[in-house]
Amino acid sequence: MAFLIAILVGTGLLMLPVSRAEPGGAPLVTALFTATSAVCVTGLIVQDTPTYWSAFGQSVILALFQVGGFGIMTGATLLGLLVTRRLKLTRRLIAQAETKSLSLGDVAAVLRLIFLVTVAVELLTTAVLTLRLRYGYDYDWSDALWHALFHAVSAFNNAGFSTYSDSLIGFALDPLMLAPIMASVVIGGLGFPVLHELRQNMRHPARWSVHTKITLLGTAFLLIAALAATAAYEWNNPATLGAFDWTGKLLNAASHSVMARTAGFNSVNIGEMHVETLAVTYVLMFIGGGSAGTAGGIKVTTFFLLGFVVWAEIRGQPDSNAFRRRIGSHPQRQALAIVLLSVACVGAGVLILLSVTSFPLEDVMFEVISAFATVGLSTGITGGLPPTGQLVIIVLMFIGRVGTITIASALALQERNVLFRYPEERPIVG
Amino acid sequence: MAFLIAILVGTGLLMLPVSRAEPGGAPLVTALFTATSAVCVTGLIVQDTPTYWSAFGQSVILALFQVGGFGIMTGATLLGLLVTRRLKLTRRLIAQAETKSLSLGDVAAVLRLIFLVTVAVELLTTAVLTLRLRYGYDYDWSDALWHALFHAVSAFNNAGFSTYSDSLIGFALDPLMLAPIMASVVIGGLGFPVLHELRQNMRHPARWSVHTKITLLGTAFLLIAALAATAAYEWNNPATLGAFDWTGKLLNAASHSVMARTAGFNSVNIGEMHVETLAVTYVLMFIGGGSAGTAGGIKVTTFFLLGFVVWAEIRGQPDSNAFRRRIGSHPQRQALAIVLLSVACVGAGVLILLSVTSFPLEDVMFEVISAFATVGLSTGITGGLPPTGQLVIIVLMFIGRVGTITIASALALQERNVLFRYPEERPIVG
Ligand SMILES: [K+]
Ligand SMILES: [K+]
Repeated sequence: MAFLIAILVGTGLLMLPVSRAEPGGAPLVTALFTATSAVCVTGLIVQDTPTYWSAFGQSVILALFQVGGFGIMTGATLLGLLVTRRLKLTRRLIAQAETKSLSLGDVAAVLRLIFLVTVAVELLTTAVLTLRLRYGYDYDWSDALWHALFHAVSAFNNAGFSTYSDSLIGFALDPLMLAPIMASVVIGGLGFPVLHELRQNMRHPARWSVHTKITLLGTAFLLIAALAATAAYEWNNPATLGAFDWTGKLLNAASHSVMARTAGFNSVNIGEMHVETLAVTYVLMFIGGGSAGTAGGIKVTTFFLLGFVVWAEIRGQPDSNAFRRRIGSHPQRQALAIVLLSVACVGAGVLILLSVTSFPLEDVMFEVISAFATVGLSTGITGGLPPTGQLVIIVLMFIGRVGTITIASALALQERNVLFRYPEERPIVG
Repeated sequence: MAFLIAILVGTGLLMLPVSRAEPGGAPLVTALFTATSAVCVTGLIVQDTPTYWSAFGQSVILALFQVGGFGIMTGATLLGLLVTRRLKLTRRLIAQAETKSLSLGDVAAVLRLIFLVTVAVELLTTAVLTLRLRYGYDYDWSDALWHALFHAVSAFNNAGFSTYSDSLIGFALDPLMLAPIMASVVIGGLGFPVLHELRQNMRHPARWSVHTKITLLGTAFLLIAALAATAAYEWNNPATLGAFDWTGKLLNAASHSVMARTAGFNSVNIGEMHVETLAVTYVLMFIGGGSAGTAGGIKVTTFFLLGFVVWAEIRGQPDSNAFRRRIGSHPQRQALAIVLLSVACVGAGVLILLSVTSFPLEDVMFEVISAFATVGLSTGITGGLPPTGQLVIIVLMFIGRVGTITIASALALQERNVLFRYPEERPIVG
């Protein structure tokens, strides 16, 4: 609900003439699209951010994705806390009624911690970027600060909005610009539960929870695999990595591997990539980042959890284990439900968008996965979508952002008493 | 193993000069591709069946897909019997050793039944088609019989090979040709366990097993949904359904819905279909037909079983039920493993084929899913594949055919003793 209100307020503000660079207010669909994209920290745009919106409009967008990102982090963390707490309590057979609420102290503590982490990371990134823009590019201080702040907030919240028309393509060969943004993106994308545990137990990896271990190792694995695949497929593509020397190729392959998983900045032109790279990027975008963070997608834990389950099945082990812990049947079924419902959403989105536009399949698939997993990358078709197509993307962004978290928590929280069980029967599978 | 031998023998026979219509033998890759496609009852072709191969060559192909289809049906049925029997026995705590073998009597009975069903359906279809070709198209008797026999065997085994260069497009407006073939395809695609149960308990649907109920209702649902989707998307496409009147449109939409799930005949030109229809067809092909039949894909039961699991999760029910029977956790995990491994195979296939060719994504995806699910439809790129691409398709057909059955049975048969269990831990999902 809070999301809807933020989107509607944002739409109203963006429709004001003062938000737009040219005279006259933005049309409803454009404002709605931009506000939804900002609040859901997606980053897809139908109008170029720096030229279409005024400084006020850009500030509104900045505020929207900061509010959206903070809301997602706190909301998902609190729901997660409710879920895990509840689980512990029901195990101890404490009355159900007590477990459905969190104490005010818990809520305040979580809000404070998330606020502090957000401010700390964003300020640090802003400072580094400001210095770089001031001394590397001769911006004056206020310009440098504005661009740095916008990108720092956008990066930590994985929003992907940029004050440059070509996103980060202008900085493709500048590691001093890309590295702080990439670091900020990765930290924001890990999710608060992992950050919290890292802060408490940094020195004792053995004590980390399975959730943290899967998220960290899974993220590292995905980053390296994506870097290798991007480099391999694009190494000699003159429109993307081919133009750089080998350090530039590696830097930008790394940048794509970080950004494609949910951030949505780009330092190379996505529209010029080979279709093989796009296919790899579909998978990366669909998986997304860590739970209860600003990342989208089905989440790293969901993906690898199902991987552990399949691995156990192949090995013929009755239990599905990960890092010497058993994965219960309930999280398994939950992960399965999330993945299949997500596939269904993406499939329906692709089919509808194909019906109302005439773009090729690879671009439509890219756009739909990017919207659903709130990534924000595009092969360049967003601006050319008809209003119906824009509405489809708006709905996908909203479902992808709010739907997965809400459904996941709802699935985890609900529990019914078993009045009777049916006898088991074994259909032939496969 | 038997499959490999059949493929190698077939390859050898097809390389003989006598198999080819023109002078000289067929090259190795062409013969290997055709033999694999026939034994795996896929139906993809790199060379036009009636013009490239001699009557002898076509007979070899006919023999290969008859042997392949029969082998799949018996092999999968026996394995399925082993699995279900074993399950029942272990429940009754009978010694494990006894359960790993089937009695010779069982094997003989299964072989005899499958043989009878195959011969009965194929003879009936051949008779109907022969009469139609003789009196409707003025073929002489021997020609009519040959074409009828070839299509009858091809249809029941869901092989999709045709003695016409344009498959069934020449009969697009003739329900008397299409209907018997469609009926034969559907019966062959249900799978032997369902046919056996129907024969025994035709009058008492309440006694049917969950497997039979899911297969029959699922098949009906998929057929109707596919007919509706095809009709809706292609109604006005002048290159496909648009050329027909409304009975022709419905007939050919029905034909596509039947053939796309695994048979691989086509009465309209797949290459001219809208990309929306292709996208729907991806899903149909991937799901495929019934277990332990000549159909490919992940199978109807696997698909709907996961659907029931997701539905139970959404409703918050601790048990996953279907038709008043509980679905055990083992078949659930097995279905999950099959689907995810299949997705991984298809994904890898698409990526590799994209790398070695320059066809558009929608055609490559179609080709890969068609090969993996042994469907045999093509948008027309098979003949244009380079040898490496043909090898990729050969491997996909083989894995898709042999792999899913073998893996499914292996998964179901293996069982390990639990020496110790790890404590349960709950990662955050989604
Ligand atoms: K984003
Ligand atoms: K086939």
